[in-house]
Amino acid sequence: MSAAHDAVEVIIAKRDGHELTDSQIDWVIDAYTRGEVADEQMSALAMAILLNGMEMREIARWTAAMIASGERMDFSSLSRPTSDKHSTGGVGDKITLPLAPLVAACGVAVPQLSGRGLGHTGGTLDKLESIPGWRATLSNAEMLAQLEEVGAVICAAGDGLAPADKKLYALRDVTGTVEAIPLIASSIMSKKIAEGTGSLVLDVKVGTGAFMKDEDQARELASTMVALGTDAGVHTVALLTDMSTPLGLTAGNAIEVAESVEVLAGGGPADVVELTVALAREMLAGAGVTDLDPAEVLASGRAMDTWRTMVRAQGGDPDAALPEARESHVVAAPASGTLTRLDAMAVGLAAWRLGAGRARKEDPVQAGAGVVWHARPGDTVTEGQPLFTLLTDEPARFDRALVSLEGGYEVGDDTSYAAAPLVIDRISG
Amino acid sequence: MSAAHDAVEVIIAKRDGHELTDSQIDWVIDAYTRGEVADEQMSALAMAILLNGMEMREIARWTAAMIASGERMDFSSLSRPTSDKHSTGGVGDKITLPLAPLVAACGVAVPQLSGRGLGHTGGTLDKLESIPGWRATLSNAEMLAQLEEVGAVICAAGDGLAPADKKLYALRDVTGTVEAIPLIASSIMSKKIAEGTGSLVLDVKVGTGAFMKDEDQARELASTMVALGTDAGVHTVALLTDMSTPLGLTAGNAIEVAESVEVLAGGGPADVVELTVALAREMLAGAGVTDLDPAEVLASGRAMDTWRTMVRAQGGDPDAALPEARESHVVAAPASGTLTRLDAMAVGLAAWRLGAGRARKEDPVQAGAGVVWHARPGDTVTEGQPLFTLLTDEPARFDRALVSLEGGYEVGDDTSYAAAPLVIDRISG
Repeated sequence: MSAAHDAVEVIIAKRDGHELTDSQIDWVIDAYTRGEVADEQMSALAMAILLNGMEMREIARWTAAMIASGERMDFSSLSRPTSDKHSTGGVGDKITLPLAPLVAACGVAVPQLSGRGLGHTGGTLDKLESIPGWRATLSNAEMLAQLEEVGAVICAAGDGLAPADKKLYALRDVTGTVEAIPLIASSIMSKKIAEGTGSLVLDVKVGTGAFMKDEDQARELASTMVALGTDAGVHTVALLTDMSTPLGLTAGNAIEVAESVEVLAGGGPADVVELTVALAREMLAGAGVTDLDPAEVLASGRAMDTWRTMVRAQGGDPDAALPEARESHVVAAPASGTLTRLDAMAVGLAAWRLGAGRARKEDPVQAGAGVVWHARPGDTVTEGQPLFTLLTDEPARFDRALVSLEGGYEVGDDTSYAAAPLVIDRISG
Repeated sequence: MSAAHDAVEVIIAKRDGHELTDSQIDWVIDAYTRGEVADEQMSALAMAILLNGMEMREIARWTAAMIASGERMDFSSLSRPTSDKHSTGGVGDKITLPLAPLVAACGVAVPQLSGRGLGHTGGTLDKLESIPGWRATLSNAEMLAQLEEVGAVICAAGDGLAPADKKLYALRDVTGTVEAIPLIASSIMSKKIAEGTGSLVLDVKVGTGAFMKDEDQARELASTMVALGTDAGVHTVALLTDMSTPLGLTAGNAIEVAESVEVLAGGGPADVVELTVALAREMLAGAGVTDLDPAEVLASGRAMDTWRTMVRAQGGDPDAALPEARESHVVAAPASGTLTRLDAMAVGLAAWRLGAGRARKEDPVQAGAGVVWHARPGDTVTEGQPLFTLLTDEPARFDRALVSLEGGYEVGDDTSYAAAPLVIDRISG
């Protein structure tokens, strides 16, 4: 039991630049979860944390207190090790779809608890729900059984994990306190640690289409999360990856599933394959599997088999035709030359405005909507060739999507263009 | 009409250190008053203001927006000029009681809207309510009539003045955001400007018993308030006065009324007389009256006549015996020598714990409770003589009051002791 504190005392301590004590942190998270600390008190504290920061010790304790606010899952009964991946979110980021079955095909169980999209970045569950019959919600028992039998599960996180985080995240969203590294790190890590994975790989995105636009900040977030995971006994590694350019050639829901299936079939865009394999290698290493090359397993077709079993296990039909948007609009290349820039944020906003994403949690998404780009930076294009295809069920959405794309790409005559590396750095404990 | 904004946009602007625009300020105060901006959003904004500050332009606009949230009073129909005083609160601060009738006796109307005490500083209304029959609540029409006929009124502020401030003050109290100079200054000045006084004198306390312990901060608060008043067309001057030692020889309710009556009768402690006359001189000058010496008017008995009329006009009996505490406890001087220190906070806490003040807004106060001290710093005392008399209706309160007093005074042999000046500085526009 933590000693009794007072919300104003805790707020004032952080406001005045002091470190919070373990007892203050335990009390404030518990009292907030129980409703004894009011939303207006927690938002003032969140703003003080955002502006005055937290020491690593405080962040670790804050994370532990959020984990203690709910249930913890336990995969120790499984016959294989577990590994999970978390991405901080990007445009065209469908990596979880080929990655989870690939790692499972290598003998490591992947308990991937995912979320839905909000704003310009898509959500893994939204993408998978475009597969006819597929359902995101599983009971803990169903999840455990699927992990044992199939080796991979991608499903919605239950309400029982870190309820303090759920409540705090909703509050931060409306109070301008999302962008605090201690709060972002503890939010992500409390759920991943409570989930019970044995090892974890973090894909921390940096660039215009990412939450972190700045490399130093992304690096700080990555180090903080790696330290939190390591501290809690979870083998944790982070890759810092580029999100100034969107991943692959599609941003949407069904069109990203189709692209993922291409990768599982041995094709697909080179960058998606590269990142999938790089993350798989980290997940396998984290789980102690070092004798398999995920690139070979991908080429062998075994990951595709696991994908099909995984989709079927959650009621989906892997052979069913994916939904298609009713309307399309092609944007032609304005000149001949090299595509020298394709901005992730511009593409993400366009896809969102076409109906692939949602503005509010309760909004539906269109399965078929999104953006397809027909060239990646470095590719040669010819004036008049299709550069983008915009997809939506509602043609009234084209205009605002076109506005988002404006200025988001450049065709030049710089034939020496070389894309920046996709994996910028690797951060380990 | 202000343009439409979004609470998160306004919070983020201040969080990131930007100046808020006029339109953002107008919108956020109006939307908060209407309930469109939620408490948890306003508290995050208040914390960002506390930590990142506000420019003078922003504070002035914030004050104007709070005034615009409610009604404004208008004293222009009165046959005499108006002047008001505001004290930031101290221990034994009964100055309003002799001051209002004194200034009124000099021909300047005093519309003194006052509050109740909270914590260790007393409230003017609490003190006056110890007078049998006296009532604090007047309608605007009654107030105006009394100002015309008597010249002075001390009553409770109505709910119609600056309702945004009322709501914001209650929020700041529970969210650790009281101590922000822009918010303190705009809170005080919005009410005083909306009240419609023609001139205003601010008594900004500094010292252990004051809200501002630090002279630099007190000076900044004073300058900010003087600038706000001047900007709004109210002749405003501030005196920075010492609150390391309590005022007079009493802290409580009825005992402070009795001390005030002594001052009106031409006696009373020298410091209370000094501050009353200094503030009266400023109030008269602000209202354009420079041909009268308030010290002479006080000595003439005319202020006492106005006091008696003022008390009667609000249902009180100036000749009735004041309530007395049922129990008393004497603290004797521990040694012979000079009283070299008498700490305002220690005395204020003791009076509060004896029942003279309240911990929560809805608590009652004891009319007879409080502390009387029988010497002031610089006075010679003899071992064993009464140094304090503690008064309460509930003897169980003595113990905690004695703990508060411990270490709050010193008797030494420094015969060269000289008290610090009471009026530290004068700040004008």
